[in-house]
Amino acid sequence: MYFHRQELQFTSSPSKPDAVFARKLQEVLGGQYGEITVAMQYSFQAWNAHIPGKYRDLLFGIAAEEMGHVEMLATMIAQLLEKAPLGITGDAVQDDPTVAAVIGGMDVQHAIVAGAGARPVDSNGNPWSGSYITASGNMLADFTSNANAEMQGRLQVARLYHMTDDHGVRDLLSFLLARDTMHQNQWMAAAAELRAEGHEDFPVPSNFPLKKEAREHSYEYLNFSDGKAAAEGAWASGPTPDGKGEFSYSDGPTSSVPMPPPTHPDARYYGTTDVPNRVEKIAGTVQDMLNKE
Amino acid sequence: MYFHRQELQFTSSPSKPDAVFARKLQEVLGGQYGEITVAMQYSFQAWNAHIPGKYRDLLFGIAAEEMGHVEMLATMIAQLLEKAPLGITGDAVQDDPTVAAVIGGMDVQHAIVAGAGARPVDSNGNPWSGSYITASGNMLADFTSNANAEMQGRLQVARLYHMTDDHGVRDLLSFLLARDTMHQNQWMAAAAELRAEGHEDFPVPSNFPLKKEAREHSYEYLNFSDGKAAAEGAWASGPTPDGKGEFSYSDGPTSSVPMPPPTHPDARYYGTTDVPNRVEKIAGTVQDMLNKE
Amino acid sequence: MYFHRQELQFTSSPSKPDAVFARKLQEVLGGQYGEITVAMQYSFQAWNAHIPGKYRDLLFGIAAEEMGHVEMLATMIAQLLEKAPLGITGDAVQDDPTVAAVIGGMDVQHAIVAGAGARPVDSNGNPWSGSYITASGNMLADFTSNANAEMQGRLQVARLYHMTDDHGVRDLLSFLLARDTMHQNQWMAAAAELRAEGHEDFPVPSNFPLKKEAREHSYEYLNFSDGKAAAEGAWASGPTPDGKGEFSYSDGPTSSVPMPPPTHPDARYYGTTDVPNRVEKIAGTVQDMLNKE
Amino acid sequence: MYFHRQELQFTSSPSKPDAVFARKLQEVLGGQYGEITVAMQYSFQAWNAHIPGKYRDLLFGIAAEEMGHVEMLATMIAQLLEKAPLGITGDAVQDDPTVAAVIGGMDVQHAIVAGAGARPVDSNGNPWSGSYITASGNMLADFTSNANAEMQGRLQVARLYHMTDDHGVRDLLSFLLARDTMHQNQWMAAAAELRAEGHEDFPVPSNFPLKKEAREHSYEYLNFSDGKAAAEGAWASGPTPDGKGEFSYSDGPTSSVPMPPPTHPDARYYGTTDVPNRVEKIAGTVQDMLNKE
Amino acid sequence: MYFHRQELQFTSSPSKPDAVFARKLQEVLGGQYGEITVAMQYSFQAWNAHIPGKYRDLLFGIAAEEMGHVEMLATMIAQLLEKAPLGITGDAVQDDPTVAAVIGGMDVQHAIVAGAGARPVDSNGNPWSGSYITASGNMLADFTSNANAEMQGRLQVARLYHMTDDHGVRDLLSFLLARDTMHQNQWMAAAAELRAEGHEDFPVPSNFPLKKEAREHSYEYLNFSDGKAAAEGAWASGPTPDGKGEFSYSDGPTSSVPMPPPTHPDARYYGTTDVPNRVEKIAGTVQDMLNKE
Amino acid sequence: MYFHRQELQFTSSPSKPDAVFARKLQEVLGGQYGEITVAMQYSFQAWNAHIPGKYRDLLFGIAAEEMGHVEMLATMIAQLLEKAPLGITGDAVQDDPTVAAVIGGMDVQHAIVAGAGARPVDSNGNPWSGSYITASGNMLADFTSNANAEMQGRLQVARLYHMTDDHGVRDLLSFLLARDTMHQNQWMAAAAELRAEGHEDFPVPSNFPLKKEAREHSYEYLNFSDGKAAAEGAWASGPTPDGKGEFSYSDGPTSSVPMPPPTHPDARYYGTTDVPNRVEKIAGTVQDMLNKE
Repeated sequence: MYFHRQELQFTSSPSKPDAVFARKLQEVLGGQYGEITVAMQYSFQAWNAHIPGKYRDLLFGIAAEEMGHVEMLATMIAQLLEKAPLGITGDAVQDDPTVAAVIGGMDVQHAIVAGAGARPVDSNGNPWSGSYITASGNMLADFTSNANAEMQGRLQVARLYHMTDDHGVRDLLSFLLARDTMHQNQWMAAAAELRAEGHEDFPVPSNFPLKKEAREHSYEYLNFSDGKAAAEGAWASGPTPDGKGEFSYSDGPTSSVPMPPPTHPDARYYGTTDVPNRVEKIAGTVQDMLNKE
Repeated sequence: MYFHRQELQFTSSPSKPDAVFARKLQEVLGGQYGEITVAMQYSFQAWNAHIPGKYRDLLFGIAAEEMGHVEMLATMIAQLLEKAPLGITGDAVQDDPTVAAVIGGMDVQHAIVAGAGARPVDSNGNPWSGSYITASGNMLADFTSNANAEMQGRLQVARLYHMTDDHGVRDLLSFLLARDTMHQNQWMAAAAELRAEGHEDFPVPSNFPLKKEAREHSYEYLNFSDGKAAAEGAWASGPTPDGKGEFSYSDGPTSSVPMPPPTHPDARYYGTTDVPNRVEKIAGTVQDMLNKE
Repeated sequence: MYFHRQELQFTSSPSKPDAVFARKLQEVLGGQYGEITVAMQYSFQAWNAHIPGKYRDLLFGIAAEEMGHVEMLATMIAQLLEKAPLGITGDAVQDDPTVAAVIGGMDVQHAIVAGAGARPVDSNGNPWSGSYITASGNMLADFTSNANAEMQGRLQVARLYHMTDDHGVRDLLSFLLARDTMHQNQWMAAAAELRAEGHEDFPVPSNFPLKKEAREHSYEYLNFSDGKAAAEGAWASGPTPDGKGEFSYSDGPTSSVPMPPPTHPDARYYGTTDVPNRVEKIAGTVQDMLNKE
Repeated sequence: MYFHRQELQFTSSPSKPDAVFARKLQEVLGGQYGEITVAMQYSFQAWNAHIPGKYRDLLFGIAAEEMGHVEMLATMIAQLLEKAPLGITGDAVQDDPTVAAVIGGMDVQHAIVAGAGARPVDSNGNPWSGSYITASGNMLADFTSNANAEMQGRLQVARLYHMTDDHGVRDLLSFLLARDTMHQNQWMAAAAELRAEGHEDFPVPSNFPLKKEAREHSYEYLNFSDGKAAAEGAWASGPTPDGKGEFSYSDGPTSSVPMPPPTHPDARYYGTTDVPNRVEKIAGTVQDMLNKE
Repeated sequence: MYFHRQELQFTSSPSKPDAVFARKLQEVLGGQYGEITVAMQYSFQAWNAHIPGKYRDLLFGIAAEEMGHVEMLATMIAQLLEKAPLGITGDAVQDDPTVAAVIGGMDVQHAIVAGAGARPVDSNGNPWSGSYITASGNMLADFTSNANAEMQGRLQVARLYHMTDDHGVRDLLSFLLARDTMHQNQWMAAAAELRAEGHEDFPVPSNFPLKKEAREHSYEYLNFSDGKAAAEGAWASGPTPDGKGEFSYSDGPTSSVPMPPPTHPDARYYGTTDVPNRVEKIAGTVQDMLNKE
Repeated sequence: MYFHRQELQFTSSPSKPDAVFARKLQEVLGGQYGEITVAMQYSFQAWNAHIPGKYRDLLFGIAAEEMGHVEMLATMIAQLLEKAPLGITGDAVQDDPTVAAVIGGMDVQHAIVAGAGARPVDSNGNPWSGSYITASGNMLADFTSNANAEMQGRLQVARLYHMTDDHGVRDLLSFLLARDTMHQNQWMAAAAELRAEGHEDFPVPSNFPLKKEAREHSYEYLNFSDGKAAAEGAWASGPTPDGKGEFSYSDGPTSSVPMPPPTHPDARYYGTTDVPNRVEKIAGTVQDMLNKE
């Protein structure tokens, strides 16, 4: 169960209206790595968790915080739009080129659809999608996904910080940067603990039977481009991070087979095949089939 | 530039037709974490790379291999569909319940749209989407995303392995498992090398000015659920993985502010406000505005 | 801010596994009118509200309850999947036709992607989309949207009730039916109160200046099909619900104008136009333009 | 069957080109609540209707009118684009800031893809989606959906009216406002008639057996936020709109159960569980299973 | 303007219920090449046409017919669903394996969402999308797109014909096959006429200035795969179909340049670059920038 | 298998940064008819081909070239973004209206998400979708689709050519125009060869049994609009392009049937039907059914 309190975690009021920045903020609200994504991702991971205790509590504990971050951003966006100009008139643009930037750069659905409110979309107006989230049931894989989500998210917030000089907005962003710092650290710590406690190991899944895997290909770097420098990396020689092998390097594939012959499906799919005079022949075949039905 | 060779990296022919498994294989071809995703993700990361040398060569080198994996799966799917039954007739189902399973479980677009061929979709028929990929320009974030993609991918291949007893299909899956083992190790090694060489560090981005971040919130675990076990984790006390702080634990938020007052946008958005008799008043205001235009 | 409590509002455990019904339940979790939709819709309406007080409190109060309903459904789905069969083998299907139904009717991504967990998708596997929700800033319009959402939702739950005989599942559905009854009533009551208090009226928006509307077309039923019975309805004669007019009936349009002439955009769009020998002429024109550049 | 006549229902020609407004008009052509939506929604409701007569005739009669509105908007958009500038040159922008607004604010696909023509997309370029429409077979629910669609649509047209001062465009919008007034009234009248005639009642579906519903929760307002004002509304006490109960108010839930224990699916999903030393144990289990296959 | 008549162009009633085939028919109603696509595609081409007369009349004339085909399919689907079983019970499946096929193979949203009605989706439940259609303003390109759409559509209808033995359904399909035959012929004839009359020619657009094109690459076949047989085709030697050149054949590219150096965007994007000790350096740079703001 | 070489097929460097044009170029990289589309479309057609030899070799040969074009465009876009301004400040816009155009007209995700890199999206930011491609197994249909794709693609490139005066960009576009010229010619030649060799004929599929088609409707133009000029076209009289019939012209349909009666599905779908006092009656029926369960 979820309970709501009519407070925000941090100050969230802009110094002045800025419809263009309101659009940009949508990215970290409703984009691929926005707050809706992490709120939903951690929630589904918690609901699909197979063990009680600290890992599931962690997921529940952060998921609810992220819902509050969605709220902080939505509130900020509505305030940035509150006094923004309604639309275009030729005269206004002639007088002030800033108006032209706003006209062009704002999310017009903020005005037409939401009446100066936030929306569940990214900065290009793509609606948030359930396909953004990851919840596999395997916590080592999912915590790695979470670490990535927090990295991408903090990167985007840092970029946005440099795109405004509004102190109110920057205050909110500096808070979100701090929480993303925490959450990156936390998922890294949690992934390490999973391994330390023997719950999961690497590569994921770590308990798939070794002899069912084509192990001769498990640690070889196969270079399918013509850049030579990839041979210099830590992935081309030496022990592997999973502690189970040695990296090798090969310029191109070490195995290959001829492509299998093309398929010949049922004639009633009317695919193109190599039967001479096939048009007439297939028509005959299909006719026979139809006559029998 | 890309060059194609009409060979496959590994044997890819099934023992018998299986339209239902063909549908399931679509997940690792065209799903969120399928081969199209990694092929495109590594390509875009390479094209957007800001440094020449081993990291970019690595991206190019693996991206092209993954395109070949798309091809292996597409070839296998076409073969699994080659002799599959066309559709439904009442009699056939009465005679053999397996037909019922096929009718229900296959991807009907395999038959209707592709004429027994592979498609750029996942196992539920959702078309592959450009929103599945990540390419931010920051390699530590992106390599973490890559590690996750290979983890999720190997997990799905392992599950699929247990959903078939066809030796031909299992051979292909055992090869893909091996390559996913390699690629998980490789991205882990590459992420470590980025840090060792001073290119990137953690948290991402590592060079955002510390004093612009609300550091007092950077290492505190805030528990927004009522599970108490989260306090026992490595993320609730002790040094942080980035080496810059100490985790603390708090039951709930350590800061809060009242929600700012609701916004009052321009009356011409016709939002609901608290002006008494607002219907008449706003009509008057808008009328005045229109009269002036 | 949101806080989570590790309890559910109502009993939610099935009597037996049922992967097919788990898929069907996804509709009311992640479909167009599922619980994610109402949770997000009421949240955005609250965040975009322009007045404090009872209407906004109502939105916040229900939004958080609906997040809990998402959780109840996700929990139930995970339980329905817990002991469900992993996949297909020919023998199993021959022995038991129920297996064939499960193979065909389950959401295969439940197994391959989520490892027997719930997902943010509908019953056909389409990911939840931000385009499902409505939050316009005008409360009378939005509360009508909310009433519709609860109607569609209760209708779907009622249908699902008849598709299972599992008492545990039915208990959950009977609870959801009750809450949908409440929420339908509530939005109807809230819409009526908005009008009674003079905040909004009908048609929405009620304060657009009358003289700017083509009022001669505001109350006429124009019949563009050849069914005659539409003339018998309450919408074809008598006073209008908004109390401002009288319905009239007309068989077809009461106004029409000739279609304006086709457009002739810039030749550099290379659209097809009616200039004789246009291929050569346009090539010349474009060449001239290019020469000048 | 549908027949087309090469006339429009109302004057639709702009006074001057305006590529930015052309983009904005796309919202009411191809957006969530645009004319394609209502044309398709009423059509599918008619095709799925279960009774002949006035309600179905009404649906057919309005659906065809709405297809004509799609046409009027498409025609207008093409005219707004007809003489609009092709693209950008630095000099032009320096001379006239209006050009900058156009460059930024137009839908660039209008130029690149459609050659100065209308498109089946919304004002942010999202393609129209079949997921926008509602057709459930239950007319009271669907007519409520229709009323909402006309409310949202008229609200958007009213907003657009204030974003242009072109008299030709405003004439078209004033006509659409009038038709939306009619259609709002009509769906309200039709919904009332359905109830008056005993076809449907409220809550939807009205004939689900009462004793199968958890009636003790059917009329209680449960406040999951901390705003106290929701208790003052008509939804917190007094008779309910469906005439079957009395509203009650409760601060928080009136029922709750502990969350059920986490699920433990088949080991071959490789989810994270709490078995000590699980990595080794599961590997053994899976190996046994594989050996038996 | 569009007018509707309550008749169908052809008999459309099935002999018996078939929920699985109802799902399959959705492909040609709401799929990529279904009837909604052609109805909308021809409509937008007509609205965006730049010349009056026979070509635009043709587009309007066929577009309206295709809307009627949408209606015929929707009507048929509703009838196929009319008596189909509601859902699943264990007993029913045990008694009759056909039920298992229906459970698995039907579109469950037909039941849950539409109450046994048609939907604007394809046979996998993907909603129809505005991105399916093509309307460029260039009629030769668009008529080629139309010819393809009718080819793909007729191919799908032919496949569906073999997936049912219901005479009522087959009658409808035989009619649709005939109309697709007509429309394929028609668009081929119309494309030829456009060229014969000098409106358009080939390659599209035919009037782009030749000297602005890198003509040395306009007729060379460059073989980027290692199959040798492509050299035997009509595209590898001899005159080109546009009558303006001679095909040549080359094994691989005839031109190449080194990849340009990687980009170095602004440091405030925090991309990974090759500056030694970049983490510290960039932090300093960004700090300086921030201090100046 | 695919191999990558770190070269480009043609010079691809702009003279100056241009973030607005970078956005526009995304259309031909990741749009409906961009290079990702043709690369994937030709690949899937090759993988699903049913005959070895020249046609399949052709598909493989071009598919790989198109992947290289994706790379050329991605590289160019990254360069156009390299020195583009980061975002907005009020002062900058006041000083230089060009900045306003850039602010408004750029793809903001280029900056926020990709850090000045290319993305797999179109010029409005819609992610590339697997639903863009066509691969049916029937080569005549698919080669017609390919010809259309190259026509639309070349048309878009030609339009883009006129939207920039940057010589570096224009050089790349002139190369792409040349390759599109080649590919249009090639698919036309290949389609002709398929017919000449008896592999396929027209209408597609050409071997569906004639007597199963309602041949009386196969060559009649039915005019569903009121424009009379369509009767003047080559599609209204004379021999048909498939050589099998004569076109005829009819003003409106030549056949019609009454719409079948509305369907009456199971009462447990709670659709609206015409039973008098249905609310009570259906409640009783459903109650009986439930009692029996």
